[in-house]
Amino acid sequence: MENQGEILIAVLRIGHRPQRDKRITTHVCLVARAFGADGIFVWRKDEKIKENLDKLVKAWGGDFFVDFKNYKKVLNEWKGMIVHLTMYGEKIDKIGEIRNKSKDILIVVGAEKVPPEVYEKANYNISVGSQPHSEVAALAVFLDRLFEGKNLYKKFEDAEMEIVPSPKGKTVIEKGFKTQRS
Amino acid sequence: MENQGEILIAVLRIGHRPQRDKRITTHVCLVARAFGADGIFVWRKDEKIKENLDKLVKAWGGDFFVDFKNYKKVLNEWKGMIVHLTMYGEKIDKIGEIRNKSKDILIVVGAEKVPPEVYEKANYNISVGSQPHSEVAALAVFLDRLFEGKNLYKKFEDAEMEIVPSPKGKTVIEKGFKTQRS
Repeated sequence: MENQGEILIAVLRIGHRPQRDKRITTHVCLVARAFGADGIFVWRKDEKIKENLDKLVKAWGGDFFVDFKNYKKVLNEWKGMIVHLTMYGEKIDKIGEIRNKSKDILIVVGAEKVPPEVYEKANYNISVGSQPHSEVAALAVFLDRLFEGKNLYKKFEDAEMEIVPSPKGKTVIEKGFKTQRS
Repeated sequence: MENQGEILIAVLRIGHRPQRDKRITTHVCLVARAFGADGIFVWRKDEKIKENLDKLVKAWGGDFFVDFKNYKKVLNEWKGMIVHLTMYGEKIDKIGEIRNKSKDILIVVGAEKVPPEVYEKANYNISVGSQPHSEVAALAVFLDRLFEGKNLYKKFEDAEMEIVPSPKGKTVIEKGFKTQRS
């Protein structure tokens, strides 16, 4: 499955409470981008998150979107598949079936309590393990497996910053200049 | 690689600031447990995190430990391998080499700024992608790949609660009784 060609992969983050969840939702956004999604819908509105992400995209490249939209509207308007990640869902072995359908995918990740209608609307309720852990982790592992582990080091277009993987220390290419940092 | 046999896998969480990082560090702990680590060392001390995890372990089983210990002490006393997860590190393709050594592994995950000595002390600095994202995600994907994706649905001993994976809704076995929830 190739990314960012014809197939759109978006994340829907529901249950975001601006005071309490800012950092976790930011991690969800960063993971969505780094692991190959095209953008994220967040409900509820939190401009600070969009500002941070827009700044990051400018430095690190690509064209990841952050939109604020009522989750019911997103679920109703989405034309492709809906995959809800929940510890109660089916085993992730279903991922081959999902991948082979080659449809746009909306991946729904919730905070603590997800409304029952999400389970109903979803074409797949998928568990990334049946133990309590983290929506950040669930999203990362789901995307890593969706792309069969081949999407972790892809290049982002128009990046000002780029890392050169190294065994010790930090090697960064910034606007064309390679630097070593400590 | 089999888990929780002879090989010990522990996580070291450094840079934890009790006010700011409580939720992210809690996600790190939950991911460590769910994806097959035996326990975590957290620096600095934060009793609330240990309380939450101990409660969760009682309900969901296993014997995951949470210890508070200065990170320098942990790094100095560790007898096995040290793997530091950092966006600057080598590609995760190294994981086969790490797995094949069959040694105890201490996986180090930091918050924003990691002291240079961690890069030096580590036998491997490994990147889970070279883009900024989340230590929660990095740990999850590293462990998922370390266990070759085979560890997600393992049973935890003495669990009071257990989930039965299902395509819709929530099926839970609680103290031997199966219930459907909405």
